[in-house]
Amino acid sequence: MGRHGGGPAEHERPQDWVEAAPRPRPLSVTDLPDGAFRTERTVRFSDCDPAGIVYTPRFVDMMSGVIEDFFPAALGLDYHGLLRDERIGLGYARIGVDFLRPGQMGDRLEFAVTVGRIGGASAAFTLHAFRGGEEILRGTFVMVTTSLAQHRAIPLPTPLRAALVAYQDRCR
Amino acid sequence: MGRHGGGPAEHERPQDWVEAAPRPRPLSVTDLPDGAFRTERTVRFSDCDPAGIVYTPRFVDMMSGVIEDFFPAALGLDYHGLLRDERIGLGYARIGVDFLRPGQMGDRLEFAVTVGRIGGASAAFTLHAFRGGEEILRGTFVMVTTSLAQHRAIPLPTPLRAALVAYQDRCR
Amino acid sequence: MGRHGGGPAEHERPQDWVEAAPRPRPLSVTDLPDGAFRTERTVRFSDCDPAGIVYTPRFVDMMSGVIEDFFPAALGLDYHGLLRDERIGLGYARIGVDFLRPGQMGDRLEFAVTVGRIGGASAAFTLHAFRGGEEILRGTFVMVTTSLAQHRAIPLPTPLRAALVAYQDRCR
Amino acid sequence: MGRHGGGPAEHERPQDWVEAAPRPRPLSVTDLPDGAFRTERTVRFSDCDPAGIVYTPRFVDMMSGVIEDFFPAALGLDYHGLLRDERIGLGYARIGVDFLRPGQMGDRLEFAVTVGRIGGASAAFTLHAFRGGEEILRGTFVMVTTSLAQHRAIPLPTPLRAALVAYQDRCR
Repeated sequence: MGRHGGGPAEHERPQDWVEAAPRPRPLSVTDLPDGAFRTERTVRFSDCDPAGIVYTPRFVDMMSGVIEDFFPAALGLDYHGLLRDERIGLGYARIGVDFLRPGQMGDRLEFAVTVGRIGGASAAFTLHAFRGGEEILRGTFVMVTTSLAQHRAIPLPTPLRAALVAYQDRCR
Repeated sequence: MGRHGGGPAEHERPQDWVEAAPRPRPLSVTDLPDGAFRTERTVRFSDCDPAGIVYTPRFVDMMSGVIEDFFPAALGLDYHGLLRDERIGLGYARIGVDFLRPGQMGDRLEFAVTVGRIGGASAAFTLHAFRGGEEILRGTFVMVTTSLAQHRAIPLPTPLRAALVAYQDRCR
Repeated sequence: MGRHGGGPAEHERPQDWVEAAPRPRPLSVTDLPDGAFRTERTVRFSDCDPAGIVYTPRFVDMMSGVIEDFFPAALGLDYHGLLRDERIGLGYARIGVDFLRPGQMGDRLEFAVTVGRIGGASAAFTLHAFRGGEEILRGTFVMVTTSLAQHRAIPLPTPLRAALVAYQDRCR
Repeated sequence: MGRHGGGPAEHERPQDWVEAAPRPRPLSVTDLPDGAFRTERTVRFSDCDPAGIVYTPRFVDMMSGVIEDFFPAALGLDYHGLLRDERIGLGYARIGVDFLRPGQMGDRLEFAVTVGRIGGASAAFTLHAFRGGEEILRGTFVMVTTSLAQHRAIPLPTPLRAALVAYQDRCR
């Protein structure tokens, strides 16, 4: 309803991709493919806020760390080495996260990772976190590979692309 | 296709809301309504990662803090008091963020906030961050009001709803 | 000398406890008692700053988390339950940390914990972090038990005191 | 006594510098020299933990940021440029912090900075945080200048040494 006046924003309604999508139905841990990488996290005191539940950005931090672990464990690639030695940035162009249930101090969470669309210079990772088998968190992170020297996107390195495709195959 | 096997996930493809939406075109700071709340942030050393740019979760933390400031400054409401005294949780059910340009140490960012859909127990906030007039970051945070005593959603408190509607009017 | 003018600060020189103490000589992992609790941490991307090394406050966060793990693993006490259910605060009155070598992304660190002075309402924990057997970090955290309802110090709960004394015995 | 067995740790008792020092008496804001740099911070939701008070490492993060601001404002030096362009590390060899009163959400804190011992490759900064004129936090951070290329200590750059000495003079 025209809240951006007559400017370009009105016609784009750019935030619709977030607002318009329906709330997902929580999955069960058994809905994920057997071949999916899984890793555990415990919700720490430091993750929680004065409301007693996980502070939203800490969930994003936790998910970022799960992808960091996914690289060596599921793709056989050295995440730190790509960054430090090959100077390849593994940052995000977009993230979208549904918080389905609040996380609480001491919760044992099981994260599972699937790989979505693989583009020319990008790849999408979807992370699901389960507590007692029930999904409480789901986020998709769209990674873009960049040159840290030139701060621009570069094609996915061949070994990364190959490892992502192989991982998708194992998750079919 | 079918990477979730024959389970319910296959038909939902729940992460499509993140992957499918087109990349937004960066706005100019003048595209935002005059009445929109604005606040500045400087990118700190602590916000940046070994790639030399803002660490993704720190941008989410920064945006969470902008909403915290928006409450007293633009809505006239005591964010901390709602939480501490009225025991109303102001957490997020969903966030979606586009990272349009990397943030760098020392950047002066101007954030502007607009309010989107106001639901029964929720409200959507869209934050735009500009550097030198160019949008580098845009995120939508869908807030849900909850009872901290019972950990369930409660209707938006009347003063919050009224303030959000008045703010939308000022941004037309 | 006298940089605080003639005020009370001059005579106290309160920061001397930090500035005056000699730099410790790094220990070897075998210098710690056999009975000491040990736990591992990997230095993550998120722990590091644009200088490429661990950001100081993240080391403090990591040490705080090691004490959180020490409680159930070495003392048999539920850290989260003490806080959440018994409303006992386990905050710090003082911390002092020597950073002996920089930590780097991917480092595998072994932390060991010893217990120092046990007071009426306080206890001191010293944490040593080793990389390849060489100490790179040492910090002492003086915890004070408080009532979260009244925000004042309370005597160490009897089970906590007993567990700390027993732990000291195991480390002799 | 002797909890480290007969090893070298016993004779060093290295953590004594933390445990043995007396608790400081809180200063009043008027005890600090007029020439001292001052800056304000508000305690945010994100700074606080489930106990409802500032999480210890967030106070350390806040103090690190105060020193970051102190460089351009009080020393006339570009902290980010030293790091990014001159590749000089401004890390810490030691920190010691007294937490005199808990910080709470919404607190307005005034930080003041004094400079202590200036060594060959190091300088000590003492930060005092006041709430309503009463000191609630005091920390000393011993900075060491390093070469980021070679990861070893280097002499304090001449402009930094000169600025620190001039600042001490202004605080007399």
